[in-house]
Amino acid sequence: MNGSPVTVLTDEECWELLRTHELGRLGFHLLEQVHVVPINYAVDESTLLFRTAEGSKLLAVVMHGDVVFEVDDHDEDTAWSVIVRGSAQLLDEHEEHRADNLPLRPWVDNPKYNVVEITPTEVTGRSFRLHRPWLHMVPDPEE
Amino acid sequence: MNGSPVTVLTDEECWELLRTHELGRLGFHLLEQVHVVPINYAVDESTLLFRTAEGSKLLAVVMHGDVVFEVDDHDEDTAWSVIVRGSAQLLDEHEEHRADNLPLRPWVDNPKYNVVEITPTEVTGRSFRLHRPWLHMVPDPEE
Repeated sequence: MNGSPVTVLTDEECWELLRTHELGRLGFHLLEQVHVVPINYAVDESTLLFRTAEGSKLLAVVMHGDVVFEVDDHDEDTAWSVIVRGSAQLLDEHEEHRADNLPLRPWVDNPKYNVVEITPTEVTGRSFRLHRPWLHMVPDPEE
Repeated sequence: MNGSPVTVLTDEECWELLRTHELGRLGFHLLEQVHVVPINYAVDESTLLFRTAEGSKLLAVVMHGDVVFEVDDHDEDTAWSVIVRGSAQLLDEHEEHRADNLPLRPWVDNPKYNVVEITPTEVTGRSFRLHRPWLHMVPDPEE
């Protein structure tokens, strides 16, 4: 953090934020539409894992393309966001156990699920100092 | 809410959740990449408004296409998500005042900003009963 309203987070800071949160959103493109869906995820070493119901639309998508994952949070004064770009792949049965010891909850209860791994190609993050609304309603002419 | 783990929210419930939150994410497609960015938004009657810095990449995108907006939240037992599909348009100077009385904070402090309106074509929402992780590690064979 410095005096600027926007701070670029280090790779280490991004991973620390990724590790300490459990809910993010996955963005993907399908049939000319952009989709953004909330997912429960967990960090497993340098990848992200999440579960999805067998046969779901989401599963079909992640199997054939690049994805973007976003997690953010804010309090009264500060907001931050971490964006992960990467490729998604379905873990095979022998690898699914990697999810067993992670705090990974499917949002929809379904006895059949798949574990998907996102291997990051780019991780970026920014934090922002938030301003009180009333200071923004009339932009300061000295800025 | 009923006994099912997933509940489809009514239109009224979706708008109530939209009105009581201020941070969501905008998804859009640009140059073969999906982008998901956090935005501070506010409901103005039956549309969503947000601000973006003049000349920003985001602004260029919303001006020529459909967008998807997502907001979600969760506590220990329940999670919900509302997805808004719609078209985005830049408000002209005479309409920008509509943002003046809304709790709308740009994430980046910038004296030059534009106000963008999302006119929804579809609003959907779901809530989910969350389950404790340890109940999920071994799927219940009776389910």
